[in-house]
Amino acid sequence: MSIRLTILGCHSATPRINAFPTAQYLEINNRHFLIDCGEGTQRQMRKYKVGFSKINHIFISHLHGDHFYGLVGLLSTFGILNREKELHIYGPKGIKEVTLLQLKISQSHAKYNIIFHELSSKESELIFEDDKVEVRTIPLDHRIYTNGYLFTEKEKPRKLNMMNISGYSEINKADYLNIKAGKNVTLSTGEIVLNSELTLPSTKPLCFAFCSDTCYKLDIIPIIKNADLLYHEATFLDDKQDLAQKTKHSTTKQAAKIAKKAKAKQLVLGHYSGRYKDISLFKKEAQEIFENTELAEPGKVFQI
Amino acid sequence: MSIRLTILGCHSATPRINAFPTAQYLEINNRHFLIDCGEGTQRQMRKYKVGFSKINHIFISHLHGDHFYGLVGLLSTFGILNREKELHIYGPKGIKEVTLLQLKISQSHAKYNIIFHELSSKESELIFEDDKVEVRTIPLDHRIYTNGYLFTEKEKPRKLNMMNISGYSEINKADYLNIKAGKNVTLSTGEIVLNSELTLPSTKPLCFAFCSDTCYKLDIIPIIKNADLLYHEATFLDDKQDLAQKTKHSTTKQAAKIAKKAKAKQLVLGHYSGRYKDISLFKKEAQEIFENTELAEPGKVFQI
Repeated sequence: MSIRLTILGCHSATPRINAFPTAQYLEINNRHFLIDCGEGTQRQMRKYKVGFSKINHIFISHLHGDHFYGLVGLLSTFGILNREKELHIYGPKGIKEVTLLQLKISQSHAKYNIIFHELSSKESELIFEDDKVEVRTIPLDHRIYTNGYLFTEKEKPRKLNMMNISGYSEINKADYLNIKAGKNVTLSTGEIVLNSELTLPSTKPLCFAFCSDTCYKLDIIPIIKNADLLYHEATFLDDKQDLAQKTKHSTTKQAAKIAKKAKAKQLVLGHYSGRYKDISLFKKEAQEIFENTELAEPGKVFQI
Repeated sequence: MSIRLTILGCHSATPRINAFPTAQYLEINNRHFLIDCGEGTQRQMRKYKVGFSKINHIFISHLHGDHFYGLVGLLSTFGILNREKELHIYGPKGIKEVTLLQLKISQSHAKYNIIFHELSSKESELIFEDDKVEVRTIPLDHRIYTNGYLFTEKEKPRKLNMMNISGYSEINKADYLNIKAGKNVTLSTGEIVLNSELTLPSTKPLCFAFCSDTCYKLDIIPIIKNADLLYHEATFLDDKQDLAQKTKHSTTKQAAKIAKKAKAKQLVLGHYSGRYKDISLFKKEAQEIFENTELAEPGKVFQI
């Protein structure tokens, strides 16, 4: 069980010489996800050695350009690289039409199948699930329909408690599958041995919450509760609360309050406005409220 | 009268760490044009200090992604920069629909007016003209409808030949405008002084021909004849003629033959395939046919 998050881009608005719009590569429990895809993301993926062929699922938070203008270029490149595996794209309603029109007009016919999962619900919903991971939306409040995403490892089966099992000569290998599946064991005497005595809890599943872009929104807290890693946008320093409210973004301290109230283990800030040359103040301000705060930077990796 | 061409990107197919898709910034006779706009062009513009507000006309050769996927991001950024001046975009039919859909869905409503000039003719046509410059299409032959562009300075009026004029005491300042306009002067004796005696030719107008992407196409030669600067794509070295033909691209020597037959003054090659790590051979091969060959490289400036 592990999380490894690589920041590909973490700046707002427009790509600049040393500013890259939002994109993150998440490895969680052996699954590989791309989250958001601003212009230039495919170049950042090459720079930070993200394997193109590992990605089968792309999650787009919203359709502002700095979160999805790099998508069509990446899809074309997948085609040039002769991708054959199907690709799933999750994002707001409309993403399918605009993406397919771009691919059609540029005659970048994908040989591989693209499956769009268009979102429009304002409630949190389960949108992806396999035996390793599940992904739920985190409805956010921005100028345009926006979702964050909560990536949670699936709980593993409890492990055999060999020490306790060895105390029962009657219990043998043939019973192990049933015990792992959670069943009690009935001995020949009629005595019932509870499963909890025969097993140990598995490693705690980890979860990562991605929240961008959004204003300060308290009702995401039940959804992201106890997140092991929380990325929350902080476009502005805290003296710009008015501007944050007007543009439906968050400040450093608002992000930190969300992290604190949600009892997150670690907070990562990003989506810095282009007005700031020095982002070190972002960390300082947030840490006044939530100590375990780090700054997203291109190429930076957060690992649990 | 002058030409200054800045290469922003000159590689084919997909953006990579040190490879940037086609984009060029042309300053000609005090006009400023952007030609093609692959993904990441706006970042390259910042890197090479191209003034965003100077550009009022963008010319897109064709709708393959490596020539226009950066357009919508640039248009959005113009909006973020509060552009108010109208912007003209020239490109193949379809460019308007896809661009407007992207701007609409990302809610990047431009405050400035975008005027699309959609092209579909297979003949060379005059598509832009003002008092300084004219631009004509160069129909090319690629896998998709494609035009190159020929940028030509307008001929300036002939200059007064003051030495000759001073030989005629009757001719004075009041006549100068007529003489500049090409008129002869009739003296009081009835003698006619020819305009050619009273004027000198103005500086020769310069022209730049942009030809990408295309297979070897001899019938562009009358259009680009005597170009002072010719950019012609060379995707492959000359041993890959088969591949060039199949993908409708050109080789080094094909580009050089075009330059030689057109009696161009200087050839610039670009659009190198990603298969080549070292592009110095491109220059060497072309120079076997056309000596004055240079290689496009990001940030390189060609000035006349």
